[in-house]
Amino acid sequence: MKNLIAASTSTIFNGNYLDYLTEALTELFSETDEILFIPYARPGGISHDEYTEKAAEAFKKLNKNVVGIHTFKDPIKAIQNATGIFTGGGNTFVLVSRLYKNQVMQPLREAIFKGTPYLGTSAGSNICGVSMRTSNDMPIVYPPSFKTLGALPFNINPHYLDPDPSSKHMGETRETRIKEFHTQNDIPVIGLREGSWLRVNGSSIILKGEHSARIFKKGKEPVEIETSTSLSQVTL
Amino acid sequence: MKNLIAASTSTIFNGNYLDYLTEALTELFSETDEILFIPYARPGGISHDEYTEKAAEAFKKLNKNVVGIHTFKDPIKAIQNATGIFTGGGNTFVLVSRLYKNQVMQPLREAIFKGTPYLGTSAGSNICGVSMRTSNDMPIVYPPSFKTLGALPFNINPHYLDPDPSSKHMGETRETRIKEFHTQNDIPVIGLREGSWLRVNGSSIILKGEHSARIFKKGKEPVEIETSTSLSQVTL
Repeated sequence: MKNLIAASTSTIFNGNYLDYLTEALTELFSETDEILFIPYARPGGISHDEYTEKAAEAFKKLNKNVVGIHTFKDPIKAIQNATGIFTGGGNTFVLVSRLYKNQVMQPLREAIFKGTPYLGTSAGSNICGVSMRTSNDMPIVYPPSFKTLGALPFNINPHYLDPDPSSKHMGETRETRIKEFHTQNDIPVIGLREGSWLRVNGSSIILKGEHSARIFKKGKEPVEIETSTSLSQVTL
Repeated sequence: MKNLIAASTSTIFNGNYLDYLTEALTELFSETDEILFIPYARPGGISHDEYTEKAAEAFKKLNKNVVGIHTFKDPIKAIQNATGIFTGGGNTFVLVSRLYKNQVMQPLREAIFKGTPYLGTSAGSNICGVSMRTSNDMPIVYPPSFKTLGALPFNINPHYLDPDPSSKHMGETRETRIKEFHTQNDIPVIGLREGSWLRVNGSSIILKGEHSARIFKKGKEPVEIETSTSLSQVTL
């Protein structure tokens, strides 16, 4: 009985950290006062303490207490005992490396599948997919595997960006990159624009937020799905 | 006695494939009529044959014959016997995976160090660095290692992009990504803008092309170096 939110980004343009998700988080975490924070992705290289402080600040408004997983002697037990979990964004390679190093990838998967409310933003939602192979991040460390939680039957591309027709840059567009992914992989990819999130309740997966999302399947033209659409309806 | 060109991109805006490098390539490959092409990076997922055809078309203007490494039964011998080598761009994860799978990473390094003229563009220049940890590409396959040729004493970030002050996108800027790299790694990084290349002759490394380049060192503010500057002068 999964109960999670996987959001494209923590922060929308001109917004404060997590602010646009206030209503959704109040509902997701309604049964708990304490959230276990996984700060491993370390955006900009900030420390685990600094990052946890940032998350704690945001959750104070929701009257939730935030505790960093790095403050526990046994991170596996911390996950098993958690009544709410939040994995913040940053670098997915750093995040996945640390999840494996601390042997918490599998416990985190089990917690999500047994129904512990989970929030992921950016790198933290990327890992909800089958693999981190559709990450946008720089490969600054070498993880033991690209396999991730598999809490969703597809991959997420967070911070999805439409091609800029005025660009003179010759690097690949996001769509080109995802098409390259499908020359090597079969699973679908959902391009989640900033401000979009997925609300997962058991086997129901609903697109939320103000934007449509872009669905990429191997060998097919990408399609747009409107907000409030169920992803099972689009026969992923 | 290294003799190589590592270019940010194969193609500049409004230009044809390799056109802006014509003069530099005439000089680099002056001693050979045949170039061994490594098409492993497969941009957009095109086949090795299609990609080799594209390279052959461009080199026809320089009166050079191009042969794809994938047409040789023994790719290691192909590299050892080559009198000129070109590795094209595409996806660095796919390129590095295939170089390792075919056991040609080390032979390619040896060929470059003994002086076989080498051209790399984009992913093909990325691998000239110490590692592929400053690639911009999507991690669509899992290579056995991120270690690359080490023909340069630093890493390259190709297609380097300055931050766009008008952007409302909340994903990391390129500079933020490279700073994150330096929270986990010590080696310098050169951000090579499109239209820039490095000309390596023995121990001399000169920045070429019309742009300046951006040098990132751990714990220091990034600096710009002008074109025609020797990289040894900037005490990498």
